[in-house]
Amino acid sequence: MKVIDGSKVIHSFKSDMEPVEKVNPKEIFKVCTNDCFHGQLIREDQTFGELDYSLFNPATGPIYIEGAEAGDLLKVKILDIQVPSKGVSVTVPKEGVLGNKVTKALTKIIEIKDGSCNYNGIQIPIRPMIGVIGVAPKEGEYDTATPWKHGGNMDTADIGIGSTLYFPVNQKGALLALGDCHALMADGEIACSGLEIAAEVILQVDVIKGKEIAWPLVETDDYTMVIASGDTLDEAVYAASDEAVKYLAKGLNMSWEEAYILASLAVDIRISQLVDPKLTVRAVIPKRILETQKIIRSL
Amino acid sequence: MKVIDGSKVIHSFKSDMEPVEKVNPKEIFKVCTNDCFHGQLIREDQTFGELDYSLFNPATGPIYIEGAEAGDLLKVKILDIQVPSKGVSVTVPKEGVLGNKVTKALTKIIEIKDGSCNYNGIQIPIRPMIGVIGVAPKEGEYDTATPWKHGGNMDTADIGIGSTLYFPVNQKGALLALGDCHALMADGEIACSGLEIAAEVILQVDVIKGKEIAWPLVETDDYTMVIASGDTLDEAVYAASDEAVKYLAKGLNMSWEEAYILASLAVDIRISQLVDPKLTVRAVIPKRILETQKIIRSL
Repeated sequence: MKVIDGSKVIHSFKSDMEPVEKVNPKEIFKVCTNDCFHGQLIREDQTFGELDYSLFNPATGPIYIEGAEAGDLLKVKILDIQVPSKGVSVTVPKEGVLGNKVTKALTKIIEIKDGSCNYNGIQIPIRPMIGVIGVAPKEGEYDTATPWKHGGNMDTADIGIGSTLYFPVNQKGALLALGDCHALMADGEIACSGLEIAAEVILQVDVIKGKEIAWPLVETDDYTMVIASGDTLDEAVYAASDEAVKYLAKGLNMSWEEAYILASLAVDIRISQLVDPKLTVRAVIPKRILETQKIIRSL
Repeated sequence: MKVIDGSKVIHSFKSDMEPVEKVNPKEIFKVCTNDCFHGQLIREDQTFGELDYSLFNPATGPIYIEGAEAGDLLKVKILDIQVPSKGVSVTVPKEGVLGNKVTKALTKIIEIKDGSCNYNGIQIPIRPMIGVIGVAPKEGEYDTATPWKHGGNMDTADIGIGSTLYFPVNQKGALLALGDCHALMADGEIACSGLEIAAEVILQVDVIKGKEIAWPLVETDDYTMVIASGDTLDEAVYAASDEAVKYLAKGLNMSWEEAYILASLAVDIRISQLVDPKLTVRAVIPKRILETQKIIRSL
């Protein structure tokens, strides 16, 4: 199995990037990721202010997928996320939803063992996920802190073990990169960090030819989710809802208005994160109503 | 069992209201509710525009709960929501998250049978819930379309069978009223309606003396949720997060900053509805981390 080591990182997704590795469709490979602080925060007496921010949010890659071309879909199955024995979580004055109430910076080193983390003596089951994952954008450059149509810092709790992502391929080889894993994160990530870890991620990729999507999708056992971002929560909600209703209308062969009503009954709009440079939500389409493969076939 | 019939309705929650019935703590009683259109929309060829809007969102009540006084908590357990054999769902130009894309009004009469509804031939399991439920506010008047600290049109999918609500009591007798039930509604309610039904609701109330909360809570098997509303989604998110972090800090005896980090890891911020005069979200505290009763004891 190919292993892409954690020293090969990018800090922005660009339309033009030099790949560090090549993999084939259906190939299984390992990606070693760094935590969002790039390993700088290892003791509770360290303050956030003394860190080098320019190193934040490294994404390992880019990885060239053979046969992927603009106008295709890149399918990325997350086979495993191997977590270390500890992670870190922080709060910083002015940061997050309640930033105006934070009076001091706090760093918590949190132990992880047997599928749970220990927070002040409270055992909480972990739910490992990938915070930053994306491909080369159509044009321009997006720093790895920012989510957008190419993916990036989507901070979506459902991007976990067993889920499958679908990205629009914008450039030859797709140029996949990932990092910023969390052992645990709640919808919203209100204080600006999850349980930040350097994880080893096992992936399998595939290419679906000639199918285009506007925003990344994540497929879980029961749902297909449209992950959309915007400068405001309202913009993100609009984009995710708009895409989901289009999928319902096309995939179920009903009028747009009928699909809109159906979405109001059965498609949850969920918050992914509220704290990155753009905000992210997901529109959650039950597979029992419309299968992921049927959405993709209808594109 | 007392039955409060659906002819006794209010269209706004006022600090000063005349009760239509009195019940005792621990008493079980039935409330007959009307749908949000007050039964005006019964055929698919009816258009929304021809309805009398002044009748919308009737809430059955107010119900006086003996022994409830300002500064107490009203506990309302939802024992059952009995659904009729059909409901209605609509879309209307300019209404909802994608209102600018709606080109025509559409009315769908939807059959409900054996725990599922039939939408264009698709069977979808129902999940009955109460859209409007609240008590007399501290002061002033709130129309029943609007959610706020007294409850009202919270349109929260978790206010369903088996859940328990906690309201701040602002006036003697609390003065509970409810209506606008849905057989099914997704988080967001993006097209402005759920599967609207006239339901019969079986409730049991109780009074918890001398405990105050800022926003209503709903308790389910696994979670305690703070339900907060605001003129913007950001305001609602701030209020719900703020309250949840306070509960964690107090209930778990940790610093505010430690509680803020914990919320970022384990307290989901979920959208309830995006379409009423104020928007509603909920902060979802897992009971495995902090029990509802422990929150209430710590108030």
